[in-house]
Amino acid sequence: MKRRDFFKNGTLTAIGASLLSPAMPGYATERNLRDTHKRAKNIIMLVSDGMSIGTLNMADLYLRRKTGQASHWLRLYQEDKVSRALMDTASASSLVTDSAAASSSWGGGVRVPNGSLNVSGNGEAHLPLWQKFKKAGKKAGVVTTVPATHATPAGFCINSKSRNAQEQIAEDYLKQGIDVIMGGGNKYFSSDKRKDKTDMYRQYKTAGYNVVKTRNELLHADANKPLLGIFGEESLPYTIDYNNDTALQTEFPTLEEMTRKAIDTMKQHQEGFVLLVEGGKVDWAAHGNDIAGLIYDQAAFDAAIGAAMEFAENDQETLVIITTDHGNANPGLIYGKDVNKNFDSIQNYKHSNEWILNGINAKTNTSQLKERVAYANNIALTDQEASKLLGYYANLNQEDGLYNPKHLPFSILAEIQKQHNSVGWISMNHSADYVELAMYGPGSDLLKPFVKNTALHYQMLQAAEVANIF
Amino acid sequence: MKRRDFFKNGTLTAIGASLLSPAMPGYATERNLRDTHKRAKNIIMLVSDGMSIGTLNMADLYLRRKTGQASHWLRLYQEDKVSRALMDTASASSLVTDSAAASSSWGGGVRVPNGSLNVSGNGEAHLPLWQKFKKAGKKAGVVTTVPATHATPAGFCINSKSRNAQEQIAEDYLKQGIDVIMGGGNKYFSSDKRKDKTDMYRQYKTAGYNVVKTRNELLHADANKPLLGIFGEESLPYTIDYNNDTALQTEFPTLEEMTRKAIDTMKQHQEGFVLLVEGGKVDWAAHGNDIAGLIYDQAAFDAAIGAAMEFAENDQETLVIITTDHGNANPGLIYGKDVNKNFDSIQNYKHSNEWILNGINAKTNTSQLKERVAYANNIALTDQEASKLLGYYANLNQEDGLYNPKHLPFSILAEIQKQHNSVGWISMNHSADYVELAMYGPGSDLLKPFVKNTALHYQMLQAAEVANIF
Repeated sequence: MKRRDFFKNGTLTAIGASLLSPAMPGYATERNLRDTHKRAKNIIMLVSDGMSIGTLNMADLYLRRKTGQASHWLRLYQEDKVSRALMDTASASSLVTDSAAASSSWGGGVRVPNGSLNVSGNGEAHLPLWQKFKKAGKKAGVVTTVPATHATPAGFCINSKSRNAQEQIAEDYLKQGIDVIMGGGNKYFSSDKRKDKTDMYRQYKTAGYNVVKTRNELLHADANKPLLGIFGEESLPYTIDYNNDTALQTEFPTLEEMTRKAIDTMKQHQEGFVLLVEGGKVDWAAHGNDIAGLIYDQAAFDAAIGAAMEFAENDQETLVIITTDHGNANPGLIYGKDVNKNFDSIQNYKHSNEWILNGINAKTNTSQLKERVAYANNIALTDQEASKLLGYYANLNQEDGLYNPKHLPFSILAEIQKQHNSVGWISMNHSADYVELAMYGPGSDLLKPFVKNTALHYQMLQAAEVANIF
Repeated sequence: MKRRDFFKNGTLTAIGASLLSPAMPGYATERNLRDTHKRAKNIIMLVSDGMSIGTLNMADLYLRRKTGQASHWLRLYQEDKVSRALMDTASASSLVTDSAAASSSWGGGVRVPNGSLNVSGNGEAHLPLWQKFKKAGKKAGVVTTVPATHATPAGFCINSKSRNAQEQIAEDYLKQGIDVIMGGGNKYFSSDKRKDKTDMYRQYKTAGYNVVKTRNELLHADANKPLLGIFGEESLPYTIDYNNDTALQTEFPTLEEMTRKAIDTMKQHQEGFVLLVEGGKVDWAAHGNDIAGLIYDQAAFDAAIGAAMEFAENDQETLVIITTDHGNANPGLIYGKDVNKNFDSIQNYKHSNEWILNGINAKTNTSQLKERVAYANNIALTDQEASKLLGYYANLNQEDGLYNPKHLPFSILAEIQKQHNSVGWISMNHSADYVELAMYGPGSDLLKPFVKNTALHYQMLQAAEVANIF
């Protein structure tokens, strides 16, 4: 740590002193006198990236109507097991954050400009929370369905002026000794793909990591070593595509499986562990106005909540935090005569919009396109709709988007689907909405009903009784 | 009450027995033993109609950035003064409710089909909550910015197969002896406008009501008599139009002023009172994708919260419930380079979109239109935008909408504004989103973190210790 950072963190400690004094030696422990909660030995933070309230709501309705059971998330509310808050997600540069600044608010405890990972506009770096917990003796892990080196997991672990430095982030995780790293992103680890041709897999193996690249390898990995699990070139598949493709099921684990493995790998550690679990493709689906991608991935995220809660309810020493980093596209089910039937039709969707659109090209004819959409969505395109969609492929640069490098016509497909599934979107980007936040277990009583995202950094330290002196 | 209704309500009592037993004579009062709360003598329920979470969020951000102070609603969270829940707002007929079914869920404690006021699909009527509280000796009032006979206030007071029977509802309020009735809707009370030519004003006067029709008459009305205050033909003006028109300021009171008067009129009553306060035009603005209508009316609703809280914090015997009946249009501030500047530009808007579009007709020319939009929004329309807007007036039937009888081009104006203010909308109608709910004061501890809308009916009775036997 640079001397300047030390004083920076010293200042933060002073700010946090009234909160943290109970954990410091020599102080009268007001908390112990109140005895309102015990120490959180472990923390599991689950982030459904880019989850507007309508995403949570539609996934819950989908599960209730399909299975008769509410989502794990809402069941925690029905059973009155959690503290809740609305969270203000702004960044240092904007009312609407990106995932890097949002993750940094938790990771570094300071709002930074969009695009940055724990580095302020003036260049000041903020020590990431998973490094603090490592220094306090805990194990630390990150699990996601997007590249393991993506903004949200990286914000808990490293400092970088740019979220795009993913090859560097793959190196930084190893330098920091992050104990569990799982997600997509082979291109940032493989010597074939990296610009510098470094074989990061070999470096991790040399450092004592288990390195796994398939679901089967993951499920059988030795739980006594640190773990690097990289599945696929960029991201893991959308859950709805995974559910309908046995080849994908062989290659890739689910978010729930990765979560269970991460917990199993770290749970024996005497000083405890901290784990970030991200449903990263919920955000990507919202960027694509891709309703099946969105709802099924939110449901898969919810299954990971179930795995975390199963451990935490048994363990009784684990703080579980469930939230999102920002809204995205504010999807919602819209009033209308056939809304229930339309919404339920999504239960029969077989593939994501990404799958539909990636299977079309300038040579696809109208009847092939109609067949593909009928298969995936049970929707009969009109001739006009089909030609509008195909028109985009003749000139493949008409739609932009953060996660749309091929310029596919996501918004026109969503507009067509809206007539059949009654789901609307405000845009293809993040929103400023205050977001839902829930906490379970030791330390959850610290939560106030309205918080800035940065507050969570200090609250996690306080819950774990780790003094903020680094 | 019909005999069938008696048994119906008997059944409801049985269902509610585990909740209500403390209030029944002869039972051991578990509540008293726990002593977790005292009886709510008064209840004030404030409903921002059709308020998606983005509406609450943008009004709060607007107030913070303009005045340096958070909204009253969010300050209650910051100061940790309330219980909160997410509320499921569905109706008997749809995942997406209308305001009639939503109000009936609270008013009658039973989900009914959209369009109905406390009458089930099989014709069964459910005794409205404000009638129950009247029978228990309390005074009861309704205050709104839309017609006093509109769905939300009506659902607390009366039974009707159709929310559209507003002339009948004006009579039913009198029959039920509702003590305070305020809002718009002269056309449902005046002998000039009613189909049956009945002078409802005279009937209310004969029954001993103060009848007032202007702000000045309201502010000076005697507080010792029941009160009918009807302001304007249909609804009260949008707050942003009101703020910039001294003639409107003379004619109309604000929602806060009506709320204060309603409280003053009923607060001396020994048995207490119940009051519904509706920010009705928040919903209308959302139907019109009318951002200035929306944010300024949400802020005006927030001022009414301030008035209610001022009374309740002093009184200490008042349960305050703050919520909405459903989402609408899911507006949100969208990620982008200039989002802060764009959002702040709304602070300088002078009029609602309704005002802009009502001032245009088929004879308006391009420069007149540009001048009007520049005055109201400080936006310079392009020639193309101007001609697109004017095109709608040449053929005035191109946009439909529940609150758009003149078929004005609300959605095209909102699309143009979106480029300047960064606010997007999913549609011009209600959404299925789970919504925000907060409670302050005696009885607020009864709230669980996830509730169906119907639960509030029973919770209000329980908080007031009124046994559900009618």
